Amino acid sequence: MKTLLIIGIGAGDPDFLTVQAIKALNRVDVFFLMDKGASKDSLIHLRKHICERFIEQPGYRFVEAECPERVRGVADYRASVVDLNQDKQRVFEQMVHHELAEGEVGGFLVWGDPALYDSTLRIVEDIVQASPEPITYEVIPGITSLQALAARHKVCFNSIGQAFQVMPARRLAEGFPEGLDSVLVMLDARDTYCLFVDQEMDIYWGAYVGTADEVLIAGKVGEVAEEIRSTRAELRERHGWIMDSYLLRRRSADEA
Amino acid sequence: MKTLLIIGIGAGDPDFLTVQAIKALNRVDVFFLMDKGASKDSLIHLRKHICERFIEQPGYRFVEAECPERVRGVADYRASVVDLNQDKQRVFEQMVHHELAEGEVGGFLVWGDPALYDSTLRIVEDIVQASPEPITYEVIPGITSLQALAARHKVCFNSIGQAFQVMPARRLAEGFPEGLDSVLVMLDARDTYCLFVDQEMDIYWGAYVGTADEVLIAGKVGEVAEEIRSTRAELRERHGWIMDSYLLRRRSADEA
Ligand SMILES: C[S@@+](CC[C@H](N)C(=O)[O-])C[C@H]1O[C@@H](n2cnc3c(N)ncnc32)[C@H](O)[C@@H]1O
Ligand SMILES: C[S@@+](CC[C@H](N)C(=O)[O-])C[C@H]1O[C@@H](n2cnc3c(N)ncnc32)[C@H](O)[C@@H]1O
Repeated sequence: MKTLLIIGIGAGDPDFLTVQAIKALNRVDVFFLMDKGASKDSLIHLRKHICERFIEQPGYRFVEAECPERVRGVADYRASVVDLNQDKQRVFEQMVHHELAEGEVGGFLVWGDPALYDSTLRIVEDIVQASPEPITYEVIPGITSLQALAARHKVCFNSIGQAFQVMPARRLAEGFPEGLDSVLVMLDARDTYCLFVDQEMDIYWGAYVGTADEVLIAGKVGEVAEEIRSTRAELRERHGWIMDSYLLRRRSADEA
Repeated sequence: MKTLLIIGIGAGDPDFLTVQAIKALNRVDVFFLMDKGASKDSLIHLRKHICERFIEQPGYRFVEAECPERVRGVADYRASVVDLNQDKQRVFEQMVHHELAEGEVGGFLVWGDPALYDSTLRIVEDIVQASPEPITYEVIPGITSLQALAARHKVCFNSIGQAFQVMPARRLAEGFPEGLDSVLVMLDARDTYCLFVDQEMDIYWGAYVGTADEVLIAGKVGEVAEEIRSTRAELRERHGWIMDSYLLRRRSADEA
């Protein structure tokens, strides 16, 4: 029997690791690394740092895979992700087949929480289902970038008794969801919050939250959007990549 | 200067504590406990257990407060919560004023994450703003019950590229949000998922997730709603209280 552990490592600060995740790290024989893009080196570095800091016995090993890239700019976003996941699945399958021996434990270190806009879980499920030999797997939750963001800004996700929505920025571009006052936005490559500069809304924005490079900006969207836009551009230029997210909240009548 | 730490302790399993939360626990001189209702004893017990397990020096103390109750059954839910929070704020203020000395650190142990349907953060903010003496405060995120639920069911919150909504059940009673396929539901006292038995939807339900009493049920809503309903009733009877939550997801055309 082979075992796979999908371990949420939190979104930035190694101190976000849970006791459960640390115990899981210590069970792993082989860590599969599959980062990509401009942030690849920093992300792999952080993962190795986490292993060094929290694993008590040496003897674990890393396998780095070439990560396939999503075809960008195509009309059907979902189809392009499905294609990418199929490519990833083939790479993962090869790794699990060739690099993990019977009885061993393989680990995937997932940024933040595996349940939030991450494909590892779906891919592992497909591998397990397609595998001729039995494979068990477990999921360990981790602090998401949204929790890190809210904690640093000292705000709640929801206002009292209300629902809230979490979304990739491409959904927000279709409009602020009706009947809601709070949305949490990720994966924004296009400064989508700028669509709301004329509305009575606050934004709580953060980049590289939980890391040494963290930058936070908050205020009325109309008053801080330009500062966020220029800060983002400058940070992306300086680091070569950016990860940022934000909470947008309508002011209620009594706060406006 | 007084310092307050609002520490997310995760939703059930003490192993959900993060390294950051453990460091924060170790800075606290006084823990303020303010649980209520039928679950009060278990929740206080768990908090004390967490302190014993993770704090290295003795010398910290607990202050237990009588927690005001929300007036139930009133038409205006939000107003009743606002009233309750004002009562709580008075109790908290007294505690911070009388039980915490200058230079000391006070700690609030919040179930799950303080950003998710919890009032501690708002109350502390009001206390800090109203205080004649300066008070600093920090927020430490914790694993939410929804993350614990998703990890145990091995599902993602979102389907690929889609938004999702998080809501108290009273919002779901108004209808499944349009244009979305996934909702995460908390605070359901009325088996609201039963409204969707004739829809092509899956439910991933869990009670006491992360604890020794954990119960999980998943399947097509129409097929498992009755099992969930009777299990909930039985569990609530047995324990005297219940905490449960669920993910509802519409089946997409290709899965249905
Ligand atoms: C593919 S999603 C993965 C989210 C991850 N699973 C989590 O739990 O946070 C990547 C997006 O998360 C957000 N993100 C991740 N880490 C972040 C950080 N440290 N600060 C701000 N945003 C972050 C950004 O919006 C980024 O585009
Ligand atoms: C007032 S909210 C607080 C949520 C908490 N701050 C969190 O991060 O999970 C309480 C609701 O959380 C959900 N909940 C909390 N703990 C849970 C658990 N261990 N299992 C299932 N649901 C839980 C239930 O829906 C409950 O009604």
